[in-house]
Amino acid sequence: MFTVRRMGVDTHKESVAFLDDDDLLCRCLGLHPMDRVEISASSRKLLAVLNAVEGTLVPRGTLGLSNYAFANLGLPEGADVELRPTEPPASMDLLRAKITGKRLSQDDFRNIVGDIAEGRYSRIELTAFVVAATINSLDDDEVYALTRAMVENGEQLHFDNPIVADKHSIGGIPGNRTTPIVASIVAAAGLLIPKTSSRAVTSPAGTADTMEVLMNVELPIERSYEIVKKENGCLIWGGALNLARADDLIIRIEHPLNIDSESLMISSILAKKKAAGSTHIVLDIPVGPGSKAPTRKKADRLKTRFEEIGRRLGLKIRVLLTDGSQPIGHGVGPVLEAQDVLKVLRNEPDAPTDLREKSLYLAGELLELTGKVGSGHGRQRAQALLQSGQAYEKFERIRNLQGRRELPEPGQDTQEILAEKSGSVKAIHNEVIARVARLAGAPRDPGAGVYIFKHIGDPVKLDEPLFRVHAQSEQPLGFALKFLEEHRDAIEVG
Amino acid sequence: MFTVRRMGVDTHKESVAFLDDDDLLCRCLGLHPMDRVEISASSRKLLAVLNAVEGTLVPRGTLGLSNYAFANLGLPEGADVELRPTEPPASMDLLRAKITGKRLSQDDFRNIVGDIAEGRYSRIELTAFVVAATINSLDDDEVYALTRAMVENGEQLHFDNPIVADKHSIGGIPGNRTTPIVASIVAAAGLLIPKTSSRAVTSPAGTADTMEVLMNVELPIERSYEIVKKENGCLIWGGALNLARADDLIIRIEHPLNIDSESLMISSILAKKKAAGSTHIVLDIPVGPGSKAPTRKKADRLKTRFEEIGRRLGLKIRVLLTDGSQPIGHGVGPVLEAQDVLKVLRNEPDAPTDLREKSLYLAGELLELTGKVGSGHGRQRAQALLQSGQAYEKFERIRNLQGRRELPEPGQDTQEILAEKSGSVKAIHNEVIARVARLAGAPRDPGAGVYIFKHIGDPVKLDEPLFRVHAQSEQPLGFALKFLEEHRDAIEVG
Repeated sequence: MFTVRRMGVDTHKESVAFLDDDDLLCRCLGLHPMDRVEISASSRKLLAVLNAVEGTLVPRGTLGLSNYAFANLGLPEGADVELRPTEPPASMDLLRAKITGKRLSQDDFRNIVGDIAEGRYSRIELTAFVVAATINSLDDDEVYALTRAMVENGEQLHFDNPIVADKHSIGGIPGNRTTPIVASIVAAAGLLIPKTSSRAVTSPAGTADTMEVLMNVELPIERSYEIVKKENGCLIWGGALNLARADDLIIRIEHPLNIDSESLMISSILAKKKAAGSTHIVLDIPVGPGSKAPTRKKADRLKTRFEEIGRRLGLKIRVLLTDGSQPIGHGVGPVLEAQDVLKVLRNEPDAPTDLREKSLYLAGELLELTGKVGSGHGRQRAQALLQSGQAYEKFERIRNLQGRRELPEPGQDTQEILAEKSGSVKAIHNEVIARVARLAGAPRDPGAGVYIFKHIGDPVKLDEPLFRVHAQSEQPLGFALKFLEEHRDAIEVG
Repeated sequence: MFTVRRMGVDTHKESVAFLDDDDLLCRCLGLHPMDRVEISASSRKLLAVLNAVEGTLVPRGTLGLSNYAFANLGLPEGADVELRPTEPPASMDLLRAKITGKRLSQDDFRNIVGDIAEGRYSRIELTAFVVAATINSLDDDEVYALTRAMVENGEQLHFDNPIVADKHSIGGIPGNRTTPIVASIVAAAGLLIPKTSSRAVTSPAGTADTMEVLMNVELPIERSYEIVKKENGCLIWGGALNLARADDLIIRIEHPLNIDSESLMISSILAKKKAAGSTHIVLDIPVGPGSKAPTRKKADRLKTRFEEIGRRLGLKIRVLLTDGSQPIGHGVGPVLEAQDVLKVLRNEPDAPTDLREKSLYLAGELLELTGKVGSGHGRQRAQALLQSGQAYEKFERIRNLQGRRELPEPGQDTQEILAEKSGSVKAIHNEVIARVARLAGAPRDPGAGVYIFKHIGDPVKLDEPLFRVHAQSEQPLGFALKFLEEHRDAIEVG
């Protein structure tokens, strides 16, 4: 019998149990460090990986739990639990079959996804799944089966409406913050668009991070339903809603490895859309070096697969291939992106035209896909809703209902990066810009990021600023600038 | 600037840095939980994964380190260090190339193995390497390159002798403890056999665990050299010698996944032999269900590959396919196995004949391979050395020089498992026996394990004992018995 204690350690969603080394030895539990253990008390059960601890960190008789394990167990501190060695989750046999190249069935994926969603996979096992699915890539039947399993394993939102609009961009392009603009236009047009967005994993900002500087994005689901009922839309963080629970865990493995599994990406995106109750989706695939679709060929294949799997899931999907060669707008990082978004919504004269144009294009396509306007009239309608201020009004209503926040200042520790010669901008390296913004502190320091002055094709004079790095203090600014010393061609002038 | 503290947490060879969450936020380091960080002070540098901690566990201004990270950093507690975000190790690009199916060069493997050996890979990255090497299996050139890189990356032992004998069994067969007997015979014959063995990772005992109940196996390398000079042999734990440092880290991923990469197994074994200075090696491949070579076909392929890669490394290897259908001897677990070994060495009448015969076979082959005796005379010579007591005398001398320990009693909490019908033993499930011994506490409780009464073909009467489970206390005995309830056919009577 052990007493549970929350250790306060954020192991990023791995269930870890900390046990005093002497307890391990002297209690003759027969347990070994790194063993899989089952922690149980009355009706609660949890699988965790055992870490042995020396010294006074975990008192004898206490079982320390990582934050994720503690939350999953759902017992108060001080509760008594039993501890016993246990076998790896049953679906590990299926995972091993996938490693040897076997195709998996709907039931197989249900078992795997169930174990992942319940936190039964260790980080090693989860990584093995991700890498196996990347190398022995899944066919359409398997992606469909995986997606369904992910949808089933978590909450699902329901709206009393035959059309629930949605849009998604598949990432990799800094500053590509069209979502709040598209959602405001589409909601202003009278369509239902309950937008759930994600936070950054390794990027300088997710849509939820950017929205969070303008409004509260962590709402109870009941409150979100109310707001959607009133305003046709919302702009909330999807992470708290437990949609497609396994997906978040899988993403946390993919990102640090920086590997792109086409199959896992498709199922991740479609599972979250399906679980969020969406019916009509415009999907933005930026094409270009440094994006998820570096070549046209890869983009075309993605398009075909998204459409096919989407069709099987009963989703109407329109896939749009867009220019992914450079960042969109001026700002990269939560506050700087939010500035751009507000300028577009307010029709300010210095609003970034690329962000405005792309948002109008996506919104227009979504209006057409849902049948709200006839074919060929979408962009025009979108533009009207934006220019008239209706979209901004919609945005402000949603912002007020969710809990308004005033836009903070960008980080005040700044450094401009100047052109080392005259000419024009030949290329912008998305991944370098993203990394610089991240090193400068984004999104954890919301004012941190990069402000881009020049885009591809712009003329540049010697010593003219190409971009500015913003940080909230000196040290991260130094980290970002040090990285830039080794990557002097973030914006290439030729 | 942070002050280093050893947290006492055994993360099983992952470098983890624990930092107070408020420090992360308020110091504006621009760091995020799970970021890769570089910890540095004057000439010392270390890569670690950042875990954010709430509460009082890690005081502000302190950087907690896992045991592995603390040892790798090599600074005293209280030392001041700098912290900065850093990129993943450079060889991650090569690993991603392997994931996409590319062949890797000698230099590529040098880079990967170097980063692994220096502890620069996170557990996620290490798992990705293992799974990628398992799925996109390495060809002979790659295995050779990986093996060489592993040998170069760690200590290498050198003996002033053209012949350094060695033997290895590729595992999976409980109780297969021939090593101390073979080494004693071969050393008694006048050959050099400086035996380095491993501890169990997920099995109930490694040779080093079993030897440890009879003698000290953790010797400084200088002392081992002295003993080998005096007695031609030693029986030490190789883990402290830093041979092929990357191997230990790779094994810790493979075992919990329970996946067998042929390529990784070959390079793991041969790298350790080569680094240990061995020149002539007898390699025992048990063939049978539950072993690493379940089929004759797989065993033959392994044999061919071991011989080919061994040849390239300049090793003389004789591969022997043996019966892997059931455990060898009576005992499984350190103390119970040591009993068997002593009985064979002492020529006691109730010594297990299978262990004795297999040891004589392997020792005989090794005597022939090294040219110590002519072809066809090895077994005879081995038998003479065993029967005359010379092998036992050699064992005892080594035992005394290394630091003699007296054999403890087996665990006193026991349960006999009885036959549920009469007949004869049809099959024994190695993996069930191994798991039961492990659940009973082996090897951490050295007296824990399984004592086998009946082997395949033995006649059995109803209610006659098939095997006995030993534990050092009640609870692990219960764990083992519970597992047996779900695996009633550990020893199948038909």
